[in-house]
Amino acid sequence: MGNEDNTAAGAKSGSMRVAVVGLGSMGMGAATSCVAAGLTTYGIDPRDSACEAFVEAGGAGAASDGRDFAGDLDAVILLTVNAAQCRDALFGEKGLAAHLKAGTPVMVSATISVADAKAIAAELEAAGLTMLDAPVSGGAARAAAGEMTVMAAGPAAVFDQLQPVLDAVAGKVYRISEKIGDGATVKIIHQLLAGVHIAAGAEAMALAAKANIPLETMYDVVTNAAGNSWMFENRMRHVVDGDYTPTSMVDIFVKDLGLVTETGLSMKFPLPLATTAYSMFATASNAGYGQWDDSAVIKVFPGIDLPDSGKH
Amino acid sequence: MGNEDNTAAGAKSGSMRVAVVGLGSMGMGAATSCVAAGLTTYGIDPRDSACEAFVEAGGAGAASDGRDFAGDLDAVILLTVNAAQCRDALFGEKGLAAHLKAGTPVMVSATISVADAKAIAAELEAAGLTMLDAPVSGGAARAAAGEMTVMAAGPAAVFDQLQPVLDAVAGKVYRISEKIGDGATVKIIHQLLAGVHIAAGAEAMALAAKANIPLETMYDVVTNAAGNSWMFENRMRHVVDGDYTPTSMVDIFVKDLGLVTETGLSMKFPLPLATTAYSMFATASNAGYGQWDDSAVIKVFPGIDLPDSGKH
Repeated sequence: MGNEDNTAAGAKSGSMRVAVVGLGSMGMGAATSCVAAGLTTYGIDPRDSACEAFVEAGGAGAASDGRDFAGDLDAVILLTVNAAQCRDALFGEKGLAAHLKAGTPVMVSATISVADAKAIAAELEAAGLTMLDAPVSGGAARAAAGEMTVMAAGPAAVFDQLQPVLDAVAGKVYRISEKIGDGATVKIIHQLLAGVHIAAGAEAMALAAKANIPLETMYDVVTNAAGNSWMFENRMRHVVDGDYTPTSMVDIFVKDLGLVTETGLSMKFPLPLATTAYSMFATASNAGYGQWDDSAVIKVFPGIDLPDSGKH
Repeated sequence: MGNEDNTAAGAKSGSMRVAVVGLGSMGMGAATSCVAAGLTTYGIDPRDSACEAFVEAGGAGAASDGRDFAGDLDAVILLTVNAAQCRDALFGEKGLAAHLKAGTPVMVSATISVADAKAIAAELEAAGLTMLDAPVSGGAARAAAGEMTVMAAGPAAVFDQLQPVLDAVAGKVYRISEKIGDGATVKIIHQLLAGVHIAAGAEAMALAAKANIPLETMYDVVTNAAGNSWMFENRMRHVVDGDYTPTSMVDIFVKDLGLVTETGLSMKFPLPLATTAYSMFATASNAGYGQWDDSAVIKVFPGIDLPDSGKH
């Protein structure tokens, strides 16, 4: 990469300079969408392979340490796995926050708790930076197409600062409110549904297996009737195929339904289905399926014969 | 109605003669779909108003007692609420079974247990009649359009006998197997998903209300993201509108998730989410919401402000 290249690219397009932190399935999609939209885009990820792939895909540069180019950036998007990684990227040993220009907006798009969203916003403010509480949904395919759903909260001025980035990565942007934390809340409630739907799909398919109903038939009936869900249609296909190659892992829902459960506890609000689904994912993880596709939550039901391609 | 009309109609079209038992939202749709397909169609329902409405809609006749025309019938469809009503229609005081021609096929489309499906099949066989175990899904609108989803099990010969009826009422027919009871099982597993999805939608919207997230926004986000389900999109609209006019009632899911729970018990199979959802619907029913729209399961969450149109 190097500064000469960076300057050249910036000069050519006169475009915004943005860094995407976390080049996983969602982050890589968001980063390449920024490239496609003509933004000068950097990637930050500890994995050399991800950095190389992004530079090949048109990134202006990519590294595990973003401090070299932090001062040139007009915006940062965080698409890390959790709040600890967000904090590390901003305030850790190689943290960007101390090196960004004053007033640079940081779009926090990881799924994190309301308390973490508020705490990170306060730390960014103390560093002279602004934040959009902006979780995303949609899966890897929609991220790659620049069509993520963004559920965002924050001051109108920060939405305006980030408009070119939102245009690049999002198919739909919800402005929930001006209140940091509301984006996190909406995402957590969304994950409640996503997680319960995967676990319910697994429970239904497990019962079908127990009752000797062909799983292909059961899948076909449900996906053509009122019992269908986005997650049933997407994830129970993996169960029918016996292919647990992860699109999203069991441990992601241990984390996300954990956030849901903590949210209920912090509000003293009962969440009978979400806490039950959390236990199912936590059981699957402890049984050794944490890194398998999240549809492997069906493994909590013993004593049934399921299709098995051997892939996971 | 009268025998002259019946004979005339049969002679005119040379068509099959079919009776639909239970002129509720699904039964009326199936009956008018049979009329639209040119079948000579009778209705059987204890309510005069339903019978009158069906005759106005082109029915060849309708009454609370079908024994007068039973001997002319080529097929019977049962779309009653439960197994007790099926039994009463076939084997009760005004029961049809003793008056049908030998070999007449009976399509049992109510949602009933596997044990009831098998028992009714045995009783029909003893009476010289055949049965298709053929639950349906799709809601009132698709029933009215002749586009129900039928999940059926039974001998191939009975499928053949009922083909004109299936063509009239169904958009899609699944031939699960030849084994009576498999249709009931598939429907029960479908209802597991439908019921859990409504209860999960209610839990999510209740948490949104508790967290002061506008419900319209929450609904909009979910229906455009991976957390969506057919039931969320259909039923949580009622919560956003505060309109609990029943399309399907809470007590229907007390019954259907009760069947799911009994199925789990009979197979000694754990159903953590379904049994939790059953408790939510049973709680709502005991709190006085049994006859409200099934989205009123959200009333099990106290201490939140929900939209209220006053309708139920």
